[in-house]
Amino acid sequence: MRGVVMHAPGDVRVEDRPDPRIEQPTDAIIKVSAACVCGSDLWPYRGIEKLAGATPMGHEYVGIVQEVGPEVTTIRPGQFVVGSFWASDNTCEICRAGYQSGCVHRVLMGTVGTQAQYARIPLADGTLVATSDVPPADLIPSYLAASDVLGTGWFAAVAAEAGPGKTVAVVGDGAVGLLGVLAAKQLGAERIIAMSRHEPRQELAREFGATDIVTERGDEGIARIKDLTGGLGAHSVVEAVGTQESMMQAIHSTRHGGHVGFVGVTHDVALPGLELFGALVHLHGGPAPVRRFLPDLMEMIGDRAINPGRVFDLDLPLDRAAEGYQAMDERRAVKTLLRP
Amino acid sequence: MRGVVMHAPGDVRVEDRPDPRIEQPTDAIIKVSAACVCGSDLWPYRGIEKLAGATPMGHEYVGIVQEVGPEVTTIRPGQFVVGSFWASDNTCEICRAGYQSGCVHRVLMGTVGTQAQYARIPLADGTLVATSDVPPADLIPSYLAASDVLGTGWFAAVAAEAGPGKTVAVVGDGAVGLLGVLAAKQLGAERIIAMSRHEPRQELAREFGATDIVTERGDEGIARIKDLTGGLGAHSVVEAVGTQESMMQAIHSTRHGGHVGFVGVTHDVALPGLELFGALVHLHGGPAPVRRFLPDLMEMIGDRAINPGRVFDLDLPLDRAAEGYQAMDERRAVKTLLRP
Repeated sequence: MRGVVMHAPGDVRVEDRPDPRIEQPTDAIIKVSAACVCGSDLWPYRGIEKLAGATPMGHEYVGIVQEVGPEVTTIRPGQFVVGSFWASDNTCEICRAGYQSGCVHRVLMGTVGTQAQYARIPLADGTLVATSDVPPADLIPSYLAASDVLGTGWFAAVAAEAGPGKTVAVVGDGAVGLLGVLAAKQLGAERIIAMSRHEPRQELAREFGATDIVTERGDEGIARIKDLTGGLGAHSVVEAVGTQESMMQAIHSTRHGGHVGFVGVTHDVALPGLELFGALVHLHGGPAPVRRFLPDLMEMIGDRAINPGRVFDLDLPLDRAAEGYQAMDERRAVKTLLRP
Repeated sequence: MRGVVMHAPGDVRVEDRPDPRIEQPTDAIIKVSAACVCGSDLWPYRGIEKLAGATPMGHEYVGIVQEVGPEVTTIRPGQFVVGSFWASDNTCEICRAGYQSGCVHRVLMGTVGTQAQYARIPLADGTLVATSDVPPADLIPSYLAASDVLGTGWFAAVAAEAGPGKTVAVVGDGAVGLLGVLAAKQLGAERIIAMSRHEPRQELAREFGATDIVTERGDEGIARIKDLTGGLGAHSVVEAVGTQESMMQAIHSTRHGGHVGFVGVTHDVALPGLELFGALVHLHGGPAPVRRFLPDLMEMIGDRAINPGRVFDLDLPLDRAAEGYQAMDERRAVKTLLRP
């Protein structure tokens, strides 16, 4: 089969890779309907995260089940399925508490590489959620978004306790930040402040429910959020970048007693203890337990109540994956969809 | 009047200081019945926190109201009152959300210096809680504990979401940690693991409700907590020290999806972003909004349902305050009560 392999920073190729096969009795093999490039794929692409040699890429996916292992009981061939970037058993104590990304048997899908024609999904019963019918083609991007960026933005908004009566600020205008705006809106937030200096992204933020746009960053951005919230700061702040500046911007934009939901994969970040102590905020985040939200998100997508697929502004055949990486790296594209 | 002044690290004196007087119409003057030395007073005593010259000390207090300013309406002379180390109006939006330590008009009582015969309490109506009658002398230590260490330990346990069915671990066996154990017990925790290597403190922890004692620290301490919790970590962890080691011990002793309540005043702490991301925990803490809990805590104390005053193991006249600091610094005493 064809699949994306990163050989070095900036060096992404589509190559022949061995077809995946059932390795564990709990595995499924899916034919990938669509995959995509994640903001987190840009860390190794930019050389910020080390690569351990040539690496199959991709951890977001939707597809049609081809084959299941002998212990798979709820998922069956022919179903259209969505899964998270963490495979999880969905039965352990951590999963049952809603933290499937911390499942005691979790498998990171990045080790599988879903930017390919086929993919092996570990722990299929726990990981995959099937639709009742194969959905129409125009819904594929939205289901694909649910696999990571929507689920992650949703988790961030839930972690930030976005809800009725709340003012929510969103730091980061990538796909996750934009879908954090969508999530805050769906969760009933009263006011949603998107922090973005890119006009097309501001427009999408407004479409998703942003009521205010703040273009300033760092201390100026914090001051603007304070201005907009009677000097107090936002009740809820979504952090969807993962840098020192964005984390501190999020923490200091939050009122005392408020909530920060952080989902940007942190790199070279060290939170100063005394500033965190003085901020008196709630901080919750990490790898999103997307599986917790998948059934509800997929239902909303099927009902066309939300359209998270709007974040894909570049749609390429798998063989042109390198172009998709480059466009995202240069911020010409928010998110690239790849069709095998 | 007589009052404690710190002149330099290790140099604590009891001196004549001017009697406090009403400065703002919302002030009250109290005759201090008892004050005490806080773990946080040891930071400047040990030279870790800089002193800006000779500094009146103390921020914990109970006393009898002597005089009130013209705008004070609910507090009146003759009442026995308890207040927190943050004076707060208890009416602003942040106070109403339960974060009185982040009140928009807050005043840090450390600037007043309550280790003295009299003290000026700003924002008296918002800050002070009165008992219906002047309590018997044997309850004074417990009411005094409510002013900071009990309220802070309670906040930490609430921030860590201690409650029925939960396993709670407590990092730190100072007065706040020990009262975090008491709080976890009162909040209904199923299992309470005190991390302590000091036998008398272990005993007090057991008296307050600890079911297990872990003497190991750092990675070994984390491993012991994992052993005791089926490999998952505690649901709730109270952090009551404030060092890099204790913060990381708390974070890594918590299961994915669990809660850390941190109240140790952090010094030289920097939380590594990627470790925090990977931990997938809730982190909440800072200066405790003791005022939120005071009415309930005072009722429990009045009913003799709890006995937090047990943390005072050294009881000295105010004039011997220096001995009290020294005993705590050398860990010969958990907490020193001072009687003016």
